[in-house]
Amino acid sequence: MSKKEKLVKAITSRDKDFSQWYTDIVTQAELSSYSAVRGCMVVRPYATAMWELIRDNLDRRFKETGHENVIMPMFIPESLLQKEKDHVDGFAPEVAWVTYGGEEKLSERLCVRPTSEVLFCDHYSDVIESWRDLPKLYNQWVSVVRWEKSTRPFLRTREFFWQEGHTAHASAEEAIKETRDILDLYANFFEETLAIPVIKGVKTESEKFAGAETTYTVESMMYDGKALQSGTSHYFGDGFARVFNIQYTDRDNQLQYVHQTSWGVSSRSIGGIIMVHGDDDGLVLPPAVAPIQIAIIPVAQHKEGVLEKAAEIHQLLKQSYRVKLDDSDRMPGWKFSEYEMKGVPLRLEIGPRDIENNSCVLVTRDNREKINVPLNELEARIPVLLTEYRQRLFDKAKAHREAHFYTAHSSEEFFDLLENKAGFVKGCWCGSADCEAEVKERTGATSRCITEDKTSSSDTCYVCGKPASCNVIWGKAY
Amino acid sequence: MSKKEKLVKAITSRDKDFSQWYTDIVTQAELSSYSAVRGCMVVRPYATAMWELIRDNLDRRFKETGHENVIMPMFIPESLLQKEKDHVDGFAPEVAWVTYGGEEKLSERLCVRPTSEVLFCDHYSDVIESWRDLPKLYNQWVSVVRWEKSTRPFLRTREFFWQEGHTAHASAEEAIKETRDILDLYANFFEETLAIPVIKGVKTESEKFAGAETTYTVESMMYDGKALQSGTSHYFGDGFARVFNIQYTDRDNQLQYVHQTSWGVSSRSIGGIIMVHGDDDGLVLPPAVAPIQIAIIPVAQHKEGVLEKAAEIHQLLKQSYRVKLDDSDRMPGWKFSEYEMKGVPLRLEIGPRDIENNSCVLVTRDNREKINVPLNELEARIPVLLTEYRQRLFDKAKAHREAHFYTAHSSEEFFDLLENKAGFVKGCWCGSADCEAEVKERTGATSRCITEDKTSSSDTCYVCGKPASCNVIWGKAY
Repeated sequence: MSKKEKLVKAITSRDKDFSQWYTDIVTQAELSSYSAVRGCMVVRPYATAMWELIRDNLDRRFKETGHENVIMPMFIPESLLQKEKDHVDGFAPEVAWVTYGGEEKLSERLCVRPTSEVLFCDHYSDVIESWRDLPKLYNQWVSVVRWEKSTRPFLRTREFFWQEGHTAHASAEEAIKETRDILDLYANFFEETLAIPVIKGVKTESEKFAGAETTYTVESMMYDGKALQSGTSHYFGDGFARVFNIQYTDRDNQLQYVHQTSWGVSSRSIGGIIMVHGDDDGLVLPPAVAPIQIAIIPVAQHKEGVLEKAAEIHQLLKQSYRVKLDDSDRMPGWKFSEYEMKGVPLRLEIGPRDIENNSCVLVTRDNREKINVPLNELEARIPVLLTEYRQRLFDKAKAHREAHFYTAHSSEEFFDLLENKAGFVKGCWCGSADCEAEVKERTGATSRCITEDKTSSSDTCYVCGKPASCNVIWGKAY
Repeated sequence: MSKKEKLVKAITSRDKDFSQWYTDIVTQAELSSYSAVRGCMVVRPYATAMWELIRDNLDRRFKETGHENVIMPMFIPESLLQKEKDHVDGFAPEVAWVTYGGEEKLSERLCVRPTSEVLFCDHYSDVIESWRDLPKLYNQWVSVVRWEKSTRPFLRTREFFWQEGHTAHASAEEAIKETRDILDLYANFFEETLAIPVIKGVKTESEKFAGAETTYTVESMMYDGKALQSGTSHYFGDGFARVFNIQYTDRDNQLQYVHQTSWGVSSRSIGGIIMVHGDDDGLVLPPAVAPIQIAIIPVAQHKEGVLEKAAEIHQLLKQSYRVKLDDSDRMPGWKFSEYEMKGVPLRLEIGPRDIENNSCVLVTRDNREKINVPLNELEARIPVLLTEYRQRLFDKAKAHREAHFYTAHSSEEFFDLLENKAGFVKGCWCGSADCEAEVKERTGATSRCITEDKTSSSDTCYVCGKPASCNVIWGKAY
């Protein structure tokens, strides 16, 4: 009995122990494994394929909106990191430091980039001269390192994978528009591509990015009611430009500072996919990022004509889909479990009786519905089934979020909800960091984002009782 | 006058100062710029787009031959690196060491991967159990770090970008076949995709990879006659498997060690493209990796109908090609220079007279041939022109290599050629590392590879005069 056959039996129910369920899926769907380096993960082929699909989808969206990729060095000299005060205060405590090159001690320490604002600024100060050079709409796909104490695969690892966009604009208005456009792009990506509903909003002062004027965020809710900060988009004003002296000559020949943004989505989105859609049989993948969209399983494959017909269907479907024909010597039942664990959206069963009827059986991963489909209707039915499937994933996730979204109407109710309910709680806030800290201390929940709906003049902060300035969504977060 | 207009005038002739010519192209074609980190480069959008085209082309070839991508951590604990003696001796002197995580000194130093054999081995020992798990055909696209003393963009930088394949097989035969198949894949990639002729061969003991049994290589010749080691493929036997205990149960239930390979092509291939095809007007790019394949330049674009017609052609061609329509307010002459500098294979000029004649002018980058093409023949002519263009690049590079390839017939001639000719010299060798070292000391040339053609019994080593065991190609190398 191989390792895999042993493992398939050991999945924990997500309602019993969500954390163990997550670990079981990561292991049994062969997404990642622990590495020799504490806190770093090996991303196995299946998760790497997911990440490549995520990358290609976002990359296409970035390029369609005029962005270009670059590659910056992975190291940042200590003096460069220290140039912008808020930024260095935010990141220096958690970076990895290179102190030796070969046998030689370096004259200046280099940190492994935790993010690349200062590298982009340094480059922009080099290449931006006139209004003709603007905007600069750069992005890079790299890994970054943050020396986290406690780690979990995909959600929090010392090295993680992401894209980081860094743009420079002639005006504040244009930069703010970019920040918001990217937030919309991210929201659309999560909702359409990953079938994960998100809430858009603005971070509070204490939760915003180190060095940013404003941080926008898309937040999603996991099955256990906890929040996952899924993508952020930062507006920097001309703060970095003044520190790094990034100036351009405008059309009137005047020197001006550029206005900048940065934004990122990371490999933790894979953690989000697991925790939003997965169930007690394993992953449930949205079709757009499923490495295998259709698994073809021959039934009674020793019987004459079965493998031939399966191969024929495979040939037909692989022109439009990512299809795997599993004609290995495993039992069909083993294969059903395997591709359920891997979250494959559609299973196609084909056996002697199906062939006789010129049909096959399609099974959708989320609801296990079995559908008899005549072979000559396959090509027409599959896109419809996949579209409906994606919509069901989204609707289910959204209904789940709505069922775990609470609005507090009083201080008492606010703390009661935060202490006793898994989910998001919306409540009035005065804007003070002290009140925010108190909520965190009492309940473990953090402010996820400020919502767009305004408070009325009679609303008061649920912590201090002073007049409220905004509504905030609170929740425990990964 | 913008920075670019100033710069366009300053290109050095490659026959006058090849090294300065290279630097000028890298700067003026906006391929890379220096970064705040000594020895590391910023890869600018144009070169990043080239690297993505190289990546996608190779990646498709790898996937078509059954390989899967993974992502390993960027760090290697010192104890893990030290497990295989030859390997650590080869790499430890040139790695970057991380010694601090945040404020905390690490209990064990971590090196930033210079290559990832030991990480793959560590993972393989984890996931390989039975013959069912073999072969493992893994690859990753990452950057690696080697603390080089003197650096040049793309050719030798402290951080560089590459793919590294790492495979594990049930038998030596299968692993050797993989090593050779990959060498053929690389050769085909360089010759077909990059139009760079290569010589395939085997590295000598002193030039082979640290820890390998055999290193295969593809070597190409630059315009200045120097060699560029362009891709290598290593056979490890079961050496690493024994050290890392990578065993599997075979079909007879016996424990066996796996046999391994690794292979890589890096961002130095961009340096090769520059130095093989470039000329005194800039880059000359093979169509497959040209970020812009066709530049459309409207002539007298203020005249009625010109921009409309240019836009119409752009719409038509962009369905099949990477096309840029430059309708900026620059002069056509400036644009011609710009896209020549960027090595764009085809320039399409369209002006009022062309429109009147229902035609346009196509200019091929390598030979500046101007071709009048009726608009209704554009779609048919372009693929032919691009195919012929690629073939010309390849033929020219091959003729250049042949004109600088010498076969020595005596010891005297051997040293005379190596000392006085730019190019490759083939000569007999006894197989001793001492003789190899003497050639290097006297001439600066290194053994590039052992060729397949055998020596005869009367051939003697051109260094020591003892019987020769093989023919070796020698050359000065980047």
